[in-house]
Amino acid sequence: MGEGASGDSRLKEALVAIAGEVDGAFDALLPVPDDARARLYEAMRYAAIGGGKRLRPLLLTAVAGMYGVQREAAIRAAIALESIHVYSLIHDDLPCMDDDALRHGKPTLHLAFDESAAVLAGDSLHDFAFEVLSDPATSADPFTRIELVRVLATSSGAEGMAGGQMMDLVAETSEFDLHTITRLQQLKTGALLGAAVEMGAILGHVPPEGRTHLRSYARDIGLAFQIADDLIDHEGDAEVAGKAVGKDADAGKATFVSLMGAERARDQARMLVEQAVGHLSGHGEEADLLRSVARYIVERDH
Amino acid sequence: MGEGASGDSRLKEALVAIAGEVDGAFDALLPVPDDARARLYEAMRYAAIGGGKRLRPLLLTAVAGMYGVQREAAIRAAIALESIHVYSLIHDDLPCMDDDALRHGKPTLHLAFDESAAVLAGDSLHDFAFEVLSDPATSADPFTRIELVRVLATSSGAEGMAGGQMMDLVAETSEFDLHTITRLQQLKTGALLGAAVEMGAILGHVPPEGRTHLRSYARDIGLAFQIADDLIDHEGDAEVAGKAVGKDADAGKATFVSLMGAERARDQARMLVEQAVGHLSGHGEEADLLRSVARYIVERDH
Repeated sequence: MGEGASGDSRLKEALVAIAGEVDGAFDALLPVPDDARARLYEAMRYAAIGGGKRLRPLLLTAVAGMYGVQREAAIRAAIALESIHVYSLIHDDLPCMDDDALRHGKPTLHLAFDESAAVLAGDSLHDFAFEVLSDPATSADPFTRIELVRVLATSSGAEGMAGGQMMDLVAETSEFDLHTITRLQQLKTGALLGAAVEMGAILGHVPPEGRTHLRSYARDIGLAFQIADDLIDHEGDAEVAGKAVGKDADAGKATFVSLMGAERARDQARMLVEQAVGHLSGHGEEADLLRSVARYIVERDH
Repeated sequence: MGEGASGDSRLKEALVAIAGEVDGAFDALLPVPDDARARLYEAMRYAAIGGGKRLRPLLLTAVAGMYGVQREAAIRAAIALESIHVYSLIHDDLPCMDDDALRHGKPTLHLAFDESAAVLAGDSLHDFAFEVLSDPATSADPFTRIELVRVLATSSGAEGMAGGQMMDLVAETSEFDLHTITRLQQLKTGALLGAAVEMGAILGHVPPEGRTHLRSYARDIGLAFQIADDLIDHEGDAEVAGKAVGKDADAGKATFVSLMGAERARDQARMLVEQAVGHLSGHGEEADLLRSVARYIVERDH
């Protein structure tokens, strides 16, 4: 179904396009005010603009595109989702959390600014996500807007990403088995990747019962993504990754690689990708971008 | 209009009632899960249950009551608003922010748990607010729900409370005049008090143009509230206040009291309260609780 080399080049184009659109939208939506709040907006922009693979916006807009959603609406929803992702990275990098110095190849926000600016910029991007979704420019239909809010808030909070982050902190002092690590990663990384697909489907007015295969696709690529991340952390190069590597092993944390070994982990990631692609069998060419994204997730080196 | 002693006793009853309802709702809505996320929910509950005057929920439910809104819906919206207030206190108390040890008479969350739990519990309560609002149990009408989200997100983020907090950080190293301090406080404290009134009016289906007098009331009591806080910080007793006092002076920060003197500040607060009550002149007895709240704001000692 149009895979292989042409799929690769289309994915590359899509990655370049979404990066430009996301940067452009953040730039337009976050002008720096001419008052004492300027530093807050500068910190938000430092973290939000010009970094990251924009994988969540890519997924959201790819699904929205399958259902003929207007590009501008999809980009706005993608900005909301990416704001949540960026805020979580800012807080995750704080000294009291992962204490990271490097993010997307540049100093983390609390080093470039300071810790209090990092806390507040994260909090502000957190609100910004819901401001963007609640604006009629995202969708004229209030039900669509509130559904986007519901999915994003649930995926981001204690039932989703933040719950996974807490499990990750507990993992430093507990012996987690493969089952618990899987659950942890389904929350920590999987929840927002699932939200990407779900939000695209909401914009496309796909009824909840019609989203099952998309949800299964998201679950499989979410897990594959995390296994790939563990492999990068295990074998990778900090310069290529744009962040510190080898941290999990140093912290004595169980990962897919430490529990399964690198070889089995790699096989498992590939199997999950094939399974993810299988969930799209009801779709034709319009799902080719989602198929390419699934393959990209395990083949990337950062 | 039914003021004086009977207004006082009705306010006392309302304060006791709202405290019980808010604690009860947080307790019911935040059960502790039986997995590695338990610690996160325990931290959220530690901060959310059993402390604070619940002034914002009182205001929101008082306005909603004027327009015949069902109590359960008003309490849910009040829980969302209070979650934002509580999350902001948790992050504000962090060592990298105000570094406070005492909140509502007990150790701050980062001391009772640890800093990473405090960051994540704050973030999770932040999402919880929008989860609660997006749930149909808050209102069957999606437009009402998304309007609540819009007002809360805007009041809480960089355009509102978080913007004011950043100005407050900048104030430590800048010489702010009365105009800038007023603007700072209108954002830092006033935005959420304004949201309380606005959210009550949204639930009551009051059209935006009909909310002007309520907005003016909120602006005046917001400023009066902050002047009263500065007076408590200036003259107060840490045991009564339930938090550290005298911190602004120690930090060399300009406050209403440092800029106007205690006597003029007290007069100004009283004048603002009378002005706030004046904005309610179009209402009869149904606004008595709002009148009592305005007076309470400058007479409290914590």
